[in-house]
Amino acid sequence: MAKDKKMVEAITSMDVDFAQWYTDVVKKAELCDYASVKGCMVIKPAGYALWENIQNELDRRFKETGVQNVYMPLFIPEGLLEKEKDHVEGFAPEVAWVTHGGLEPLQERLCVRPTSETLFCDFYAKDIHSYRDLPRVYNQWCSVVRWEKTTRPFLRSREFLWQEGHTAHATAEEAEERTIQMLNVYADFCEQILAIPVIKGQKTDKEKFAGAEATYTIEALMHDGKALQSGTSHNFGDGFAKAFGVQFADRDNALKYVHQTSWGISTRIIGAIIMVHGDDNGLVLPPKIAPTQVIVIPVQQQKEGVLEKAYELGSRLSNFRVKVDDTDKSPGWKFSECEMRGIPLRVEIGPKDMANHQAVLVRRDTHEKTIISLDELETAVADMLETIQSDMLERARAHREAHTYSAANWEDFTELVNHKPGFVKAMWCGDQACEDKIKEETGATSRCMPFQQEHLADTCVCCGKPAKKMVYWGKAY
Amino acid sequence: MAKDKKMVEAITSMDVDFAQWYTDVVKKAELCDYASVKGCMVIKPAGYALWENIQNELDRRFKETGVQNVYMPLFIPEGLLEKEKDHVEGFAPEVAWVTHGGLEPLQERLCVRPTSETLFCDFYAKDIHSYRDLPRVYNQWCSVVRWEKTTRPFLRSREFLWQEGHTAHATAEEAEERTIQMLNVYADFCEQILAIPVIKGQKTDKEKFAGAEATYTIEALMHDGKALQSGTSHNFGDGFAKAFGVQFADRDNALKYVHQTSWGISTRIIGAIIMVHGDDNGLVLPPKIAPTQVIVIPVQQQKEGVLEKAYELGSRLSNFRVKVDDTDKSPGWKFSECEMRGIPLRVEIGPKDMANHQAVLVRRDTHEKTIISLDELETAVADMLETIQSDMLERARAHREAHTYSAANWEDFTELVNHKPGFVKAMWCGDQACEDKIKEETGATSRCMPFQQEHLADTCVCCGKPAKKMVYWGKAY
Repeated sequence: MAKDKKMVEAITSMDVDFAQWYTDVVKKAELCDYASVKGCMVIKPAGYALWENIQNELDRRFKETGVQNVYMPLFIPEGLLEKEKDHVEGFAPEVAWVTHGGLEPLQERLCVRPTSETLFCDFYAKDIHSYRDLPRVYNQWCSVVRWEKTTRPFLRSREFLWQEGHTAHATAEEAEERTIQMLNVYADFCEQILAIPVIKGQKTDKEKFAGAEATYTIEALMHDGKALQSGTSHNFGDGFAKAFGVQFADRDNALKYVHQTSWGISTRIIGAIIMVHGDDNGLVLPPKIAPTQVIVIPVQQQKEGVLEKAYELGSRLSNFRVKVDDTDKSPGWKFSECEMRGIPLRVEIGPKDMANHQAVLVRRDTHEKTIISLDELETAVADMLETIQSDMLERARAHREAHTYSAANWEDFTELVNHKPGFVKAMWCGDQACEDKIKEETGATSRCMPFQQEHLADTCVCCGKPAKKMVYWGKAY
Repeated sequence: MAKDKKMVEAITSMDVDFAQWYTDVVKKAELCDYASVKGCMVIKPAGYALWENIQNELDRRFKETGVQNVYMPLFIPEGLLEKEKDHVEGFAPEVAWVTHGGLEPLQERLCVRPTSETLFCDFYAKDIHSYRDLPRVYNQWCSVVRWEKTTRPFLRSREFLWQEGHTAHATAEEAEERTIQMLNVYADFCEQILAIPVIKGQKTDKEKFAGAEATYTIEALMHDGKALQSGTSHNFGDGFAKAFGVQFADRDNALKYVHQTSWGISTRIIGAIIMVHGDDNGLVLPPKIAPTQVIVIPVQQQKEGVLEKAYELGSRLSNFRVKVDDTDKSPGWKFSECEMRGIPLRVEIGPKDMANHQAVLVRRDTHEKTIISLDELETAVADMLETIQSDMLERARAHREAHTYSAANWEDFTELVNHKPGFVKAMWCGDQACEDKIKEETGATSRCMPFQQEHLADTCVCCGKPAKKMVYWGKAY
């Protein structure tokens, strides 16, 4: 029993130290490890399987909207990065530079892509000629590099995996439509598959992407009340097109600039899964994204027929992603381990259960035990996975609602931001000066101007001037 | 008609200039394009869809053998690359070096991975403790960079996509078994899915991978008689384990070094598909790998009911990867275009066909036309795709057999190598001096010592000393 407990004891309680709890879960659930290059990750099988499921789900949704996958080079020549002024200012300070190829110094430095707008624009400028070539709705799955000073696994790493969609359209309307369409794909994916409810909205000018006309975001609330930007979609208007000369001959024969978008979601979302659903026993995975949905654990497996019965249940459940834990570890150790790894449902089967023609189902999210007749195994498991999935979304939504506050004046606002972890809704005049002041004095940033606006007051919570927008504020990862 | 022909005219005939034909096909079939960084590719939707199908097929086969996917960092610190002597000598001259992160110079240079043995070893050294941790059978899908001087799309590019498997085992036998197992996975995949027959064998010491004890290879013959190394599998013995200190406590409590393997296949294989199957009309894709297997082309589509009928046939064929070309291009243009793109089978449907309750099937590989009753559409298409797949393999095999020669003496050998493009089988004494001489005097390299050895003569074709092995020789990409 001492041995069984060891695995659990190594996790810090989230109430004691949330940051340490997070690191412990990442490590003990074997999602990733640090590499010898500071700030870079080794994504281990359990973490990568999660990413593969995320990729499969998103890629299918993308393709249903007409997205085609491509691959652009890893390197961007310095001159190309510099073509769009805001963009280079945003990214140049945090890129890695290649200066030598083999034994020779390069004539022009190459940066390792931090994002690929410039490469897509360079390509589109050569490849798009006529309105017949539009729209272009391309996406790539790749790794990108940003030389961050402070790093944390999944949340902020010097290299991370992501997808970046880059589209070109004949009209501004079509570009805006695509920007919102992809934000909705992300939001639906987060809610339906990851059981993470999100706030959809627009970033302020201060917080928008370097070079974008408008940035839209989905914001999720973590268990500790901090916000996590979980996916973004940008409308570039024709700014990049003008900088790179991406033009097309329209139906009226006039030469026009294309309108562009880009949108991305990254391995950061794995951090959100951990911090929205996890508990002091480890990871808790929503069934729809879990690499293993059901684990069958034989109890007293040395007794005759137990292991065989476990295999039999495993094969009856082969429509699910199922595993049978037939290792020689103790059942207690196995229970701790599958809890740590976040497997949504476990099926316990031992000699007593066999005698009663039953099995014990244990939910990972609530620890609730249910005894079922073996006759109803498949349907009971299917029902329970569905219940777990929807309960997890509801619980996350309730947690977010319980941690979303409104403030009509500066005193309430600072009181809430400083003492109530969560989102604070407040009115804003639209001036960056107020955003700057709020960040400086409270550490909170504007998360988004939500699509669902509310009228909380007439005046800006910071300066008292007439308010233009309601904003979600919060401390963020 | 002039317009219809334009697309085809732009391709150089392969008999006139095979290299130019290759470049033309890559470009006109829209597989990839050059990027602004010399030697790097933009892989376009048609090329990437091919790669996705290759990935799906291989990944499924890998996982059936117990492979788990992971992701290692893009960067290797210089000190880590230097740990295995042969390995660093092999790769250091052709890597790209990152020297700056953001605005700061780095304390230690980082190379962009040319391959990841060193990263996996570094990880395994920390992560493997006991025989219970073995075997480790990891793989990653990623891009790698090698600063080649001369580059060609897919065949030799400074950045390319691949998978690299890296495994660690308790015994030398198990490592050797895995090395051969993965070579067989590659060979089966090439033959069954890509319709490319391959010679399986071992590389000579001169040609083996930097740091490997043994390298196994699959070698394919291109249409022009040149060889292409299409996949390799390496047995490292315990060489890397000793350099990196990868040890485990065995069942007998003794501390032992692991035995390691690695194996990879890259976007280079797309070059093989082009050069084995292509013809003067463009790409020819085997049905099992083709992103679009069947294209339905309406003839006289402005006539009433034609377009509707084409859609109907398209939806009847939805079990295949099917497209209906309903663009306003002429049928002749559409025919040329789908030939250029290599779509295995086209279904033509026009008013006359409709009156006769028939359709015309045209095979891409043979241009053979077959009129079928619409009643048998689904089965006729299924049968024909199967026939195309097996005919393509047989044709490629026949081509290779017709271009494989044997030489028992130096005169025959040089005559064949210089005047008969293809493989030349000949006996070899085992001395690198003879390999060097053959390469210098004829340009041919040893492709492999095939598993299926033949006894062609008693003496080495080069020096006349007693022969040890039969070797496949050839000029190679």
